[in-house]
Amino acid sequence: MHELWISSVGAFLTTAAFLPQAVLTIRTRDTSGISLVTYLMLVIGVSFWLVYGLMIMAWPIIIANAVTLVTGGTILTLKILGMRKGDAHSPPGE
Amino acid sequence: MHELWISSVGAFLTTAAFLPQAVLTIRTRDTSGISLVTYLMLVIGVSFWLVYGLMIMAWPIIIANAVTLVTGGTILTLKILGMRKGDAHSPPGE
Repeated sequence: MHELWISSVGAFLTTAAFLPQAVLTIRTRDTSGISLVTYLMLVIGVSFWLVYGLMIMAWPIIIANAVTLVTGGTILTLKILGMRKGDAHSPPGE
Repeated sequence: MHELWISSVGAFLTTAAFLPQAVLTIRTRDTSGISLVTYLMLVIGVSFWLVYGLMIMAWPIIIANAVTLVTGGTILTLKILGMRKGDAHSPPGE
């Protein structure tokens, strides 16, 4: 009986979670402590989930992963731009 | 036919994604560019997913969210510790 709202809250939080990070990174451009590999894996991972959602036409999966693709993609882009300017901690391979 | 391996790759990547960030943050303690709100939402969100997985006894959901709870929880803890030492960009409310 409670499964629906518990999974909906989980889905909302894990989807919306990256919005504050995207806003903070846009505002501060402080990317030295952000892991390039994490956001590469996240963006590729949600892309697979998005393809999966489209294959089975599951709108909750499509919407959740499209949102995370945008926010995660924004953070990844700012991280790569930051590395080009030589941010402190992440050597290109990190 | 392809749905299974596509969702499995997505699940693996989005679960394992936070391990590099946890390792980088443990190594550098550079938390100024990390959003407190993001990791609060992520940790609470995967906790809901974990409860959901336990309710329906779905092992893939249980394992994936338990892993993310550990890695996300590690990053959140280091972020809070960093704020106590006054890391640059995130005022306590951020």
